[in-house]
Amino acid sequence: MPVPVAVAPTVHEMLVRAIEDGGGRFEPDPARARGLQWVGKDPVELRRLLESCPGIEWVQLSGAGVDRWTADGVVADGRIWTSAKGAYSEPVAEHALTLLRSLPQRVRATSWGSPTAVTLYDAHVVLVGGSGGIGREFARLVEPFRARVTTVRRSPEHEHEHPTDRLHRLLPDADAVVVACALTPRTRHLIDEAALRAMPRHAVLVNVARGPVVDTTALVRALDSRWIAGAGLDVTDPEPLPDGHPLWGRSDCLVTPHTADTPDMIRPLLAERLRDNVARMLRGERLTGVIDPEAGY
Amino acid sequence: MPVPVAVAPTVHEMLVRAIEDGGGRFEPDPARARGLQWVGKDPVELRRLLESCPGIEWVQLSGAGVDRWTADGVVADGRIWTSAKGAYSEPVAEHALTLLRSLPQRVRATSWGSPTAVTLYDAHVVLVGGSGGIGREFARLVEPFRARVTTVRRSPEHEHEHPTDRLHRLLPDADAVVVACALTPRTRHLIDEAALRAMPRHAVLVNVARGPVVDTTALVRALDSRWIAGAGLDVTDPEPLPDGHPLWGRSDCLVTPHTADTPDMIRPLLAERLRDNVARMLRGERLTGVIDPEAGY
Repeated sequence: MPVPVAVAPTVHEMLVRAIEDGGGRFEPDPARARGLQWVGKDPVELRRLLESCPGIEWVQLSGAGVDRWTADGVVADGRIWTSAKGAYSEPVAEHALTLLRSLPQRVRATSWGSPTAVTLYDAHVVLVGGSGGIGREFARLVEPFRARVTTVRRSPEHEHEHPTDRLHRLLPDADAVVVACALTPRTRHLIDEAALRAMPRHAVLVNVARGPVVDTTALVRALDSRWIAGAGLDVTDPEPLPDGHPLWGRSDCLVTPHTADTPDMIRPLLAERLRDNVARMLRGERLTGVIDPEAGY
Repeated sequence: MPVPVAVAPTVHEMLVRAIEDGGGRFEPDPARARGLQWVGKDPVELRRLLESCPGIEWVQLSGAGVDRWTADGVVADGRIWTSAKGAYSEPVAEHALTLLRSLPQRVRATSWGSPTAVTLYDAHVVLVGGSGGIGREFARLVEPFRARVTTVRRSPEHEHEHPTDRLHRLLPDADAVVVACALTPRTRHLIDEAALRAMPRHAVLVNVARGPVVDTTALVRALDSRWIAGAGLDVTDPEPLPDGHPLWGRSDCLVTPHTADTPDMIRPLLAERLRDNVARMLRGERLTGVIDPEAGY
């Protein structure tokens, strides 16, 4: 008997196929489903739906970061909740690499300027978080540059991984700092004035995680005071970054509008995660990307 | 008896050390030197110097591209001339990669826009020229992305290399075209209107070679007419690109001011090439990067 899985609030053909490919059955009515692929953005809307669908045992969210959902408390309802964590490592790692290398004045040039550039060759990159997937993928992408990647994580598992409290000791030796961690009460403003002051003047900061992991006010001061050479931000605080904000239009800061993983890019990756989790559910295996509401990711 | 080698028109400590490390002797007076490391930009100035220094048997130029020097005829004087070709493959390949990935509207954003992006994962890149070094390095850098690189060269040597006349047959299948060839009478306007029309609409063009390899007028038309998705140019024609030129300030074109290899970045690489060539001269071996005035590189 195939597991009935619904997709809401909007149905995408690719996700319907993923459910069927995983051995499940697409169920148009969430009230009759046991699993739910939620592709919406609004926790209140999801909570309301779930209240009228007691049969749903498992909710698959479409994002890799779930701060919006854990903050709201919707996740702690006794159901199994999974995120797409790890599924978007490729586009996010690629975007981090691009932001890192694109930082100098050059990309914002509108006239022929003086030649300056940064290089990744032999650089030391401090990677903050990323739950493994992005970190591994990023390290793979920069390997041809002979770049050295040191990862800071809540729970280090490998030799080149360090606990978060060692971050400030690693920063003075970083050519680049890439922020890829989940946003939790512990990581909010992790990159604060002290962290930015600890970075070398030639170093650059990249944020592909969540805006509030970086203290925006401190970052503006760091750039104005040249504590660091530049920043590349795919996420900001506030977000969207309002027109006229001091982070816009400066030659030492590149802002991309949360496009590390665009909808077009992630849909096939989300579909694969959904297919895999439907198949796991069918086999009674532990799902991939289970959210720990306590940890916040 | 160490070979006396001069550096002109300005002396850099790193190059003096390279001469000594190679087993040569730094000679402050070019008139007494047998070798010359020329770090200037002006062929007329160099020709004048060489006329008064008949003892100089070998001239090492500091650039990888030598169109300026072969066009002037200064190279065909019976001396051995070497360029830095191949020495700057790393920074140039890195810059090509950056231009390729940075193209979308995002990098020029000054307000929060709609999410679009390109990816290198599984992309097909057609690489034009590069005399081997840049091509190999570029292929190495994009390997983690599972990108496929097809190289077009005057003299193909490997399986994935094709003769230049096959370019137009390869273009319709390219996600990106990277121009890295020498500028010669044969490659001037190699990327013309027909080539740009042959590229898919989603493809991007990157030029890290010399401006005139691309027909600027045709490129502006290609962007205006959306024959291609975007362009990333480290070199332009004319160069410097004048303020107000139609290639400036558009969201589908990124111009960097000939900074693929900045002076700071290339000096150690040039020093290593100089050291190696001094050592080769001492051992009576063929030098690296000998210029073929006929071929133009």
